[in-house]
Amino acid sequence: MIELRADLRARLDAAVGSAQVLTAADDVAPYVTDWRGRFHGRAQAVVRPGSTDEVAAVVRACSDLQVPIVAQGGNTGQCGGATPDARGNAIVLSLARMSRVRAIDPDNATLTAEAGVPLAAVQQAAADCGLLFPLSLAAEGSCTIGGNLSTNAGGTAVLRFGNARELVLGIEVVLADGRVWDGLRGLRKDNTGYDLKQLFIGAEGTLGIVTAAVLKLFPSPKVRATALAALSDVGAAVRLLLALRQALGDRLTGFELMSAYSIELSRKHHPASPDPCPGHPWYALVQADDCASDSPLAAQLEHALGAALESGLAKDATIAQSGEQSRALWALRENIAEAQRREGPNIKHDISLPVSAIAGFLDEARAALVAALPGVRFVTFGHLGDGNLHYNLAGPAAAAPGSFLENTARANRIVHDLVAARGGSISAEHGIGQQKRDELVRYKSDVELDLMRRVKAALDPAGIFNPGKVLEAGP
Amino acid sequence: MIELRADLRARLDAAVGSAQVLTAADDVAPYVTDWRGRFHGRAQAVVRPGSTDEVAAVVRACSDLQVPIVAQGGNTGQCGGATPDARGNAIVLSLARMSRVRAIDPDNATLTAEAGVPLAAVQQAAADCGLLFPLSLAAEGSCTIGGNLSTNAGGTAVLRFGNARELVLGIEVVLADGRVWDGLRGLRKDNTGYDLKQLFIGAEGTLGIVTAAVLKLFPSPKVRATALAALSDVGAAVRLLLALRQALGDRLTGFELMSAYSIELSRKHHPASPDPCPGHPWYALVQADDCASDSPLAAQLEHALGAALESGLAKDATIAQSGEQSRALWALRENIAEAQRREGPNIKHDISLPVSAIAGFLDEARAALVAALPGVRFVTFGHLGDGNLHYNLAGPAAAAPGSFLENTARANRIVHDLVAARGGSISAEHGIGQQKRDELVRYKSDVELDLMRRVKAALDPAGIFNPGKVLEAGP
Repeated sequence: MIELRADLRARLDAAVGSAQVLTAADDVAPYVTDWRGRFHGRAQAVVRPGSTDEVAAVVRACSDLQVPIVAQGGNTGQCGGATPDARGNAIVLSLARMSRVRAIDPDNATLTAEAGVPLAAVQQAAADCGLLFPLSLAAEGSCTIGGNLSTNAGGTAVLRFGNARELVLGIEVVLADGRVWDGLRGLRKDNTGYDLKQLFIGAEGTLGIVTAAVLKLFPSPKVRATALAALSDVGAAVRLLLALRQALGDRLTGFELMSAYSIELSRKHHPASPDPCPGHPWYALVQADDCASDSPLAAQLEHALGAALESGLAKDATIAQSGEQSRALWALRENIAEAQRREGPNIKHDISLPVSAIAGFLDEARAALVAALPGVRFVTFGHLGDGNLHYNLAGPAAAAPGSFLENTARANRIVHDLVAARGGSISAEHGIGQQKRDELVRYKSDVELDLMRRVKAALDPAGIFNPGKVLEAGP
Repeated sequence: MIELRADLRARLDAAVGSAQVLTAADDVAPYVTDWRGRFHGRAQAVVRPGSTDEVAAVVRACSDLQVPIVAQGGNTGQCGGATPDARGNAIVLSLARMSRVRAIDPDNATLTAEAGVPLAAVQQAAADCGLLFPLSLAAEGSCTIGGNLSTNAGGTAVLRFGNARELVLGIEVVLADGRVWDGLRGLRKDNTGYDLKQLFIGAEGTLGIVTAAVLKLFPSPKVRATALAALSDVGAAVRLLLALRQALGDRLTGFELMSAYSIELSRKHHPASPDPCPGHPWYALVQADDCASDSPLAAQLEHALGAALESGLAKDATIAQSGEQSRALWALRENIAEAQRREGPNIKHDISLPVSAIAGFLDEARAALVAALPGVRFVTFGHLGDGNLHYNLAGPAAAAPGSFLENTARANRIVHDLVAARGGSISAEHGIGQQKRDELVRYKSDVELDLMRRVKAALDPAGIFNPGKVLEAGP
């Protein structure tokens, strides 16, 4: 156990009450390791404020005493952004107790939530008044809306609704000097100066602590249609995507690409899965939603897929005839990650590319990786509609468990270099955290890094917010 | 004519060629007055670079010699943001010659345009490959995409597609020290660090000079339906908006509120206009679009309006039966501004509110303004779906022309105070420029103004970009 400085303890106790200042090793442990156990750090204490004023008091204390602050929501991040470093001088500031939905305004289609509200609770609160909050991702039961905003979360509905950034109208932020910026506006249009909220969204807690947000709500879907299409190559998948966007417009809410091998894995570990269109190298899972209860959506999707089959664009296709069949098709996709874990360690990439560059990238990356890592197996799937691939590599079946991970740096270099050459991103939706900080320096231009450092220095001149995340720690 | 400093002239001539450095009074005049003739300034010269490198060379020259730079696109702004001040020490940097569409990528649904491309030319380039660039506003023939981004333009399709900010994937910017930030990424998802482009979009040329952008394209509409609904009050208009959003989803692309008086004015000055639902206090112009060519859109709109008539939510309604009828209904809305001008001077407001607060605001503002300005007439119309009203005031019919404008400051205070009290914005889509700079100081919190000043100091420490716009000029 690390000793909590006495002067800091007094200030923190005064700020939040001593019961909310955790220092016992067992109490602190869950907050200083990420959920997958890949990042480990230390902290002087875990502080659990219950209100914005309490967050501000904690930040003032830490600012006065030059104590680093690592903000944490549901601790479900992928890149170690919410895990403190090993020095042990930081505190973890958990937003978990700020879990109130402050307001719902159905006529304005907005909901105001505190940072610690779990994503699933935001979805439920919207549903309770007949509306939809469309952000959806695997961790939605435990991740919090503050973490979603701080990492600009993506998920499965980005094709239609955009990333978390696009679902936010206003935020409340505690600044590095402990002042509170109340930017909780619920306006669709507001051109009064710089759009400051955009800075804090996606900044992973390095510029301020988001304590609340005004979120956009949408009409809830009344009719849904799900289909699986079999394809001969990724180019055909891109053309099918464009054809379905033209046919369905914004009612096309999901278009997930899956390689035959990733489906094979999913089925191997979940044998009850359906296998409706066997024998093709690529598949697209298609989701369409309509909020009109009299929508001919299923007929329109069937018509569009029929045209694709007729023209040879799709090789086979099936449309779910029930909610159960729809869920089974989605399970095929959702079980890939779990199936991968059971197969053994993977080298994972969360990349994005212009949609037009994906087929060429996949060809070139496959050739380079097969040459560099004989026997490598490709578990390729992702949100094709957003240009976002989870491009994961498994070792040869015969390799010793874990030994394949020794190739991580080499594989990253091949994949990320090819992504960068095509104007892509080395982190499409997971962020930078501590995991990709050095990769960021390799792939960002000096000009862009300099701009980021200037923004950091302007908003957090002493560098107390999440030092060493996204950017290197300041002086 | 203002003398161009000799050292500056040499640098500018070297940067862009002397033919593109305008100093004759007649040449300079169109650039130092806004299009409506409300703002007048002076400049040492107008400089017309033809490439990003030339813009950078001009900025380096001005940075070295501490000469302010006012960037200008189509010079169609509403708030004097592109008009230099009266000191005459600035140059106007016109982006008009940077008018190239650099690339179109239909498979990625993106278009890369230089800053000086007129908005209508961007729309046309998208249409030429069967796609839609949805930003649309009255000045689209002469405004430029660089100006649209720098002011985060709104327009008539925000309900569905968002403001200009939401239509941009990447930008290229010349920074205050003359370096170029190439952020021309065409990615739907990219979580590699701070989203810097958001700072420059909507900054009105005070943080950098946007020289190019990657824009999002969409499937083009194949079926359109237009309707006019008569309503008893604004609350009913809000409820109709919500009902149509549920019935049509994102196919509802426009919902324009118009008071009976604003339509009366429109018809008075354009007597051929239709008058399909006479005798009601409020009207909503409804636009719906579908990119599916087999869409039952008109039938769905008719069904939804039928339900609204049956429940009493709407008092009367008509659906355009032809493209000609649709254009005639839109002309009713679009002719309001011109009709107003012909009636005489107006005190104009570009405000937004939570949609749920609009009815209450209108009641309270009417009472306060009638008491303060006897005989005042209200020309109320706007984009209800975005919460954005053009809330314009005309003087009593008998008043001497122009004398009513003497009440501007008083009217602004009443309107803007009531807007602020309801969490609204004093500039929904037109920006701040020089016109609303002092109003901004009144209504923004000290914390937010301080954040804006810190960002300005971080990116333009010497204050050479558009001094005195949005924020007060630096030291």
